Amino acid sequence: MLGYSSLVEPQFTSLSELRRFALGEGVSAQALFGEGAMLNLVELMPDALIPPHSHPHEQLGVVLCGQLKFVVAGHEHVLAEMDAYALPGDVEHQAQAGSQGALVLDVFQPVREDYRDAAQ
Amino acid sequence: MLGYSSLVEPQFTSLSELRRFALGEGVSAQALFGEGAMLNLVELMPDALIPPHSHPHEQLGVVLCGQLKFVVAGHEHVLAEMDAYALPGDVEHQAQAGSQGALVLDVFQPVREDYRDAAQ
Repeated sequence: MLGYSSLVEPQFTSLSELRRFALGEGVSAQALFGEGAMLNLVELMPDALIPPHSHPHEQLGVVLCGQLKFVVAGHEHVLAEMDAYALPGDVEHQAQAGSQGALVLDVFQPVREDYRDAAQ
Repeated sequence: MLGYSSLVEPQFTSLSELRRFALGEGVSAQALFGEGAMLNLVELMPDALIPPHSHPHEQLGVVLCGQLKFVVAGHEHVLAEMDAYALPGDVEHQAQAGSQGALVLDVFQPVREDYRDAAQ
């Protein structure tokens, strides 16, 4: 008993050791779940497409490798390495990897319970 | 007027273009502020030390380059590239970069208003 005020313990892990789960065709992820937010390392195969969708969760992220093209409200945003984004909840968005694929670190708040289920 | 349900608009930016602010000796950061969470890209010079501290905000993060040693509850956790962590709020922690320095992507929820002030 360390006396933390939270029910969640500190976590330290290699992202590579986390269970990989599928998010769609050519898209897989590994997630670290906090209390009110989560990290999601997403690997997209070349040209992999995440079709238009929305969720109430706020989403932020950084492109770590490759290129990712977002479409939000009819506008294209092409992101390269170390480009970042912040999308409020309930904003419809589409994303597609470039021809070299992409590695993206996503953040959701609150935690996506559907991802927690998928990661188990 | 795009009709977003949130007061916050979608944001797309290169992290390198964000204003850099000091977090301590040998430690600087660039932040992207969302509504309920934020990204903070932290650059630590070799051996730079962030002394023991705590905050009510939950903190998650990933080491992108170099090495970072956390001390939490008397335990050392040495993190290398693509190692991640999740710290509940109000947990005292210390961090120190390795001899090559470190580049770390931190996430806080909720937003750290002290960082918003510092970044202006």
